[in-house]
Amino acid sequence: MARVVVDVMLKPEILDPQGQAVQRALPRLGFEGIADVRQGKRFELEVEGPVDEAALARIHEMAETFLANTVIEDFTVRVDEPAEAGS
Amino acid sequence: MARVVVDVMLKPEILDPQGQAVQRALPRLGFEGIADVRQGKRFELEVEGPVDEAALARIHEMAETFLANTVIEDFTVRVDEPAEAGS
Repeated sequence: MARVVVDVMLKPEILDPQGQAVQRALPRLGFEGIADVRQGKRFELEVEGPVDEAALARIHEMAETFLANTVIEDFTVRVDEPAEAGS
Repeated sequence: MARVVVDVMLKPEILDPQGQAVQRALPRLGFEGIADVRQGKRFELEVEGPVDEAALARIHEMAETFLANTVIEDFTVRVDEPAEAGS
């Protein structure tokens, strides 16, 4: 089964209090050199059947109408490539 | 300034009620063919200076101790590559 990832982030011009809270906490915790933090959502969708143009278009529509609030959020849709796993 | 992305997802064996709620809502909204949804967090960190081995190791430690709860969550750290923007 193929995995499609939808990332939803606040638009750059929208204030992100969650990200700010993280960024301000980092120096207190001993982590310097991070100029900005934005926090968003990541959806991993397990798709039945082939992930073709039509399926991606459907997921794009789903993200636009349901997963993201496009007034304040941007989103990206992509087929997942395995990344280096942490811990 | 370089951007590093930390993705934090619940471990596969941990129940994800947020993702389940999304998955169950999709057929009602006319979207079929999604077998499973997991919802997690995405952090975008703007890093001052070069993103070398040392910086990535530091961010890995930050993710492990602060951004993720490694009892129930897995995380990945990667340098951001621009993806296809939605909407």
